[in-house]
Amino acid sequence: MSKFRFLTSGESHGKCLTAIIEGVPAGFEIKPELINEDLKRRQSGYGRGGRMRIECDTVEITSGVRFGKTLGSPITLVIQNKDYENWQKIMSVNPEDYTDEKSFTQCRPGHADYAGSVKYNQKDLRNILERSSARKTAIEVAVGSVAKQILMQFDIKCSSKILQIGTVSAPTLPSHAGRVSEGQEGFEAEIDRVKELGDTIGGKFEVIFENLPVGLGSFVHWDRMLDGRIAQGIMSIPAVKVVEIGENPLGYLGSEYHDEMFMENGKIVRHTNNAGGIEGGMTNGEPLIVRAVMKPIPTMRKPLKTVDLAEMTECEAHFERSDTCAVEACSVVAEARIACVLADEFLQKFGGDSLNEILSKFNV
Amino acid sequence: MSKFRFLTSGESHGKCLTAIIEGVPAGFEIKPELINEDLKRRQSGYGRGGRMRIECDTVEITSGVRFGKTLGSPITLVIQNKDYENWQKIMSVNPEDYTDEKSFTQCRPGHADYAGSVKYNQKDLRNILERSSARKTAIEVAVGSVAKQILMQFDIKCSSKILQIGTVSAPTLPSHAGRVSEGQEGFEAEIDRVKELGDTIGGKFEVIFENLPVGLGSFVHWDRMLDGRIAQGIMSIPAVKVVEIGENPLGYLGSEYHDEMFMENGKIVRHTNNAGGIEGGMTNGEPLIVRAVMKPIPTMRKPLKTVDLAEMTECEAHFERSDTCAVEACSVVAEARIACVLADEFLQKFGGDSLNEILSKFNV
Amino acid sequence: MSKFRFLTSGESHGKCLTAIIEGVPAGFEIKPELINEDLKRRQSGYGRGGRMRIECDTVEITSGVRFGKTLGSPITLVIQNKDYENWQKIMSVNPEDYTDEKSFTQCRPGHADYAGSVKYNQKDLRNILERSSARKTAIEVAVGSVAKQILMQFDIKCSSKILQIGTVSAPTLPSHAGRVSEGQEGFEAEIDRVKELGDTIGGKFEVIFENLPVGLGSFVHWDRMLDGRIAQGIMSIPAVKVVEIGENPLGYLGSEYHDEMFMENGKIVRHTNNAGGIEGGMTNGEPLIVRAVMKPIPTMRKPLKTVDLAEMTECEAHFERSDTCAVEACSVVAEARIACVLADEFLQKFGGDSLNEILSKFNV
Amino acid sequence: MSKFRFLTSGESHGKCLTAIIEGVPAGFEIKPELINEDLKRRQSGYGRGGRMRIECDTVEITSGVRFGKTLGSPITLVIQNKDYENWQKIMSVNPEDYTDEKSFTQCRPGHADYAGSVKYNQKDLRNILERSSARKTAIEVAVGSVAKQILMQFDIKCSSKILQIGTVSAPTLPSHAGRVSEGQEGFEAEIDRVKELGDTIGGKFEVIFENLPVGLGSFVHWDRMLDGRIAQGIMSIPAVKVVEIGENPLGYLGSEYHDEMFMENGKIVRHTNNAGGIEGGMTNGEPLIVRAVMKPIPTMRKPLKTVDLAEMTECEAHFERSDTCAVEACSVVAEARIACVLADEFLQKFGGDSLNEILSKFNV
Repeated sequence: MSKFRFLTSGESHGKCLTAIIEGVPAGFEIKPELINEDLKRRQSGYGRGGRMRIECDTVEITSGVRFGKTLGSPITLVIQNKDYENWQKIMSVNPEDYTDEKSFTQCRPGHADYAGSVKYNQKDLRNILERSSARKTAIEVAVGSVAKQILMQFDIKCSSKILQIGTVSAPTLPSHAGRVSEGQEGFEAEIDRVKELGDTIGGKFEVIFENLPVGLGSFVHWDRMLDGRIAQGIMSIPAVKVVEIGENPLGYLGSEYHDEMFMENGKIVRHTNNAGGIEGGMTNGEPLIVRAVMKPIPTMRKPLKTVDLAEMTECEAHFERSDTCAVEACSVVAEARIACVLADEFLQKFGGDSLNEILSKFNV
Repeated sequence: MSKFRFLTSGESHGKCLTAIIEGVPAGFEIKPELINEDLKRRQSGYGRGGRMRIECDTVEITSGVRFGKTLGSPITLVIQNKDYENWQKIMSVNPEDYTDEKSFTQCRPGHADYAGSVKYNQKDLRNILERSSARKTAIEVAVGSVAKQILMQFDIKCSSKILQIGTVSAPTLPSHAGRVSEGQEGFEAEIDRVKELGDTIGGKFEVIFENLPVGLGSFVHWDRMLDGRIAQGIMSIPAVKVVEIGENPLGYLGSEYHDEMFMENGKIVRHTNNAGGIEGGMTNGEPLIVRAVMKPIPTMRKPLKTVDLAEMTECEAHFERSDTCAVEACSVVAEARIACVLADEFLQKFGGDSLNEILSKFNV
Repeated sequence: MSKFRFLTSGESHGKCLTAIIEGVPAGFEIKPELINEDLKRRQSGYGRGGRMRIECDTVEITSGVRFGKTLGSPITLVIQNKDYENWQKIMSVNPEDYTDEKSFTQCRPGHADYAGSVKYNQKDLRNILERSSARKTAIEVAVGSVAKQILMQFDIKCSSKILQIGTVSAPTLPSHAGRVSEGQEGFEAEIDRVKELGDTIGGKFEVIFENLPVGLGSFVHWDRMLDGRIAQGIMSIPAVKVVEIGENPLGYLGSEYHDEMFMENGKIVRHTNNAGGIEGGMTNGEPLIVRAVMKPIPTMRKPLKTVDLAEMTECEAHFERSDTCAVEACSVVAEARIACVLADEFLQKFGGDSLNEILSKFNV
Repeated sequence: MSKFRFLTSGESHGKCLTAIIEGVPAGFEIKPELINEDLKRRQSGYGRGGRMRIECDTVEITSGVRFGKTLGSPITLVIQNKDYENWQKIMSVNPEDYTDEKSFTQCRPGHADYAGSVKYNQKDLRNILERSSARKTAIEVAVGSVAKQILMQFDIKCSSKILQIGTVSAPTLPSHAGRVSEGQEGFEAEIDRVKELGDTIGGKFEVIFENLPVGLGSFVHWDRMLDGRIAQGIMSIPAVKVVEIGENPLGYLGSEYHDEMFMENGKIVRHTNNAGGIEGGMTNGEPLIVRAVMKPIPTMRKPLKTVDLAEMTECEAHFERSDTCAVEACSVVAEARIACVLADEFLQKFGGDSLNEILSKFNV
């Protein structure tokens, strides 16, 4: 049921991250610089630690694009791990390079470590950490950026913003619980405070896509409901625990919640968008609004109590990284995830094997 | 990537609802009476209107089971629409039976009507309503009940409860916003109040699965993350707008949120389960906790303002049904959706083509 | 990657065969009488035994079609097993009806019996036979007939014919090995001869689809090659052992085999079609030609030597049915299989959620 | 329904070929040198032209394997195109590098050129050739080699051999039509003869897998039939036109064709294997035998008549490469394709997330 399909790969300290995207029609302009912009946005944001500065991810396209345009063949994206030179031996493919440097067994609560070690029968939790790391979202952002560039041809655009950091809300959102912040400064102050404590903090963000055609997704079968597909995309981002489409309905009666329809100048209009742009599992022509809550990053300077899986004794959790807050990065990943779903639905709905063909159909 | 795969079909007033489930190994006991119990639970709950009493759904199994046990072949489930005798001509397959009785064009905000009519090029909104109706969740509950019976063989059990109706919370959940109810009576009083107003109301519920093995789902690829798959299942239930896995992290610091691990009597234990049983996209051995918010039903006695799509004039929305609140039904559908995902992951993880084979592996 | 997706179910002597088709756009005319014609063609053909006369299959559509046209929702097809009344208890869903009447353990070579009993851990081979029976192809023919009716809207048509029965070839095919028959009479004489022997015989047939647009399928990824998808469809028909696309190339040099292109009256034309209408995994505008060889039916009056799996002793194979030759039926199933693949590719290529929308695009 | 899933990418003269394989459990040894052996086998074989000597493909593993063993995470394989340095500008991703060097418009019959240019709306047939080239089978062989290494852990092994080149048959196969060759020398003489003519030639080959467990694949649903899945894999190899499982049944009566079963020393045995190891869409414990016919390569020194798609005039086909015969290479690709299907079925059947877990189940 998928036209824009893709696989991604890569360990956090491996040689590179890779993605192959299959199903993009011919003739779409793909600009690496737009992908790099999204990669940069993913790495920035107040509250990030040191590694972000090492990385400065850039993408290389190694197939599927010629002279700036897609060929219709699978597109390959590669992001080198800049840190790899320091990890070459530790992450080596070759058995003769075996080392237990950087091995660890003190599993980190909130991460994949415990369940991963049981599932994949691994003693060295490095073998779990490397793939379960949020590092892999870099290549997912790159894939999403290709999806965005497809959507852009049809004037579909997206944006995102932070609504809340911990209990500090954006000023424009009085309906949200918690202290009202003075905007970005309020968020930064809260992040500074938490950083000071050696702790971490999560938050809530919003992604909006505008100018979507009516009728992406469908009610006819449960796995074609657009809201469901989007929720999968968002909830599968590491650390996301809550997904909302449109306005949370708690506290509204039916007569208050639903977006009534009116005629204005011969056109159907609405004055509200509580549905967040989706009715019956389909886009309804209003902006698509998706919100999500990210949990605090589980790796902390102030370590959690846990168990050493080799010794089966209590200990402190392994410490690998040092971001205080990554909500902004998370919102960039969320944009990417939604873009992939929308591009897939769009390409399915309009068919066509080249941009020209799709445009001719789209404009009928 | 799916082993327990299924398709469902059926219009709300058509002859019947049908499902085919492919991929169930041989030797599992499937009891129609357990399916019927879930169907009954879906139809009950305070706040339901008249049709529920007409229906009293029961399932018939027409393939895949012999002498009470699965054969390994596709299982077919059929639920007759008891109301069909009154709709036989209106919903007829034959062109010569054409009638515009029960046609309507006043699209209902909050439903699939508007986007559906655009997408499928339909003037008669009956052609959208019939499939977009929540009626189709009956057969999805039946499919989920088969999934539950598979899981039951491994002592995996589920339950659900209402946490909130509108702004009225369950007493055991002080952390939730809103007035604290005196339990079920409080919910019923709120529903009565809203019914009196001719309005509708939504709410929040929780589903818990217990005794799951460690390691269902995976972090290795985004579409294998269990939380993502569950979120898709839940968000694709008509009217669900919010999905949460475990505790909403807003208001927690990292040191407060994550579930520390301890050794007790030689076993790893945790004293909290904020993660809701999922870390790194996998079950971690703790109970799986999923919460969701259902919006108020958009069909109201007190009709919404809308547009007649034939006349392109403002009007009142078509009125079809009369439930005041269906949060309890929604929780039963949610159980079913999660059970399908879990059964699929379970069967993938343990392999095997017969219950005996799976049990022998499971107990290794 | 599939738009026209479907599941089928049903045991040979169970209550009914069922199929659910998901993904058909709205507005297509579906005529049950055309499905019934294909079902009848499947049951006729020289060399069939007695059960064919009992069955006389007819389809019922129980969802997805209203007043003769598709709604866009899943289509359900049901074929009752007319023989079921005699098997009701033997094939019962209920454990309390248990009986070993019609059980057998003498596995039939050439059937699924042996491997099926090992795989699904079944002692009673009835539990394998019931689903592995070619009876299930009846519902597959019905699904294919829906696919054909979709293709018909775009003037795509199919036909099939027998090329060879055993070593007797059709007169028009001198290039094929074996005795040249005097046409249909020659085939019938050969079948009579084999029937006389209490034996069975297979043969070779050809299916042709005409008027396909250029560019169904694709070379860009191996699982999108149209010839591969068709080969899967055909080889998965019970008893098919050989699939050919176009002319078997053995005995041709490159300069002889490939279909050169010429200009005639301003149009590109070819004088040969050895490629069978597919180049680079795509339709090339020439007729699609698929050939296949069906093995002799493994159930014979003159039984094969085999093993009783309960006793682990040598014995004669269980005897269930009595067709001498089913090559013609097989060709009808093959038409259906190819139609499903083509309808899927067609709907993917042209997109659109309603016939009107597709037609408007198709004619651009 | 797929556990061993993969995408491949790469243009013939692009930077590299890439594959990502998702779904391999942890703990499997993967040796790059074994992959390289298969890559070398694909490049050798009598009748290959000059480019084979340039390439000498070697694989690099950039993810999913650490210290010689799989991690459970996606495996990335990369094969550099050694020729790329000469094509860097011609195949550039950047629009500013645009050049029409190596463009061509004289479409080659037997290739994807014509249909591809129509489908993807391309004037420069280079944009079709680059992906439709058989070059892409190199990375497919690498993927298949990983699959083989999975199967090897369970002592499943494969081999292949040429049965026929044009009309020259292997001496051990008197049942095949045509002149009997004196073995490899006969094949080489025939290839030399055809090369002399400036022509090309195809042939027939056989792939055998031994030691497969009983019950891979299934009869319960048409898309789970193992023979169908294998046929898709083989028929989607560029240039393959015929696929056979086991012995071609034409010329056999039922009593002659089917493989009877006997008891010998307490074990079930068969004396024939006409079924080629598959009954009812499942492995039956006998060796799996797959045969295929490859057409002559359509690119010839002695060019075919064709049409220039830019001028719409008759002309001679573009000439790119110069192999006379690639049947041996094709058989290596076929091994790879079958290995992928078998590994997928094997991993599905036995479940498990690590080699240890699978072995413990496999040996139950």
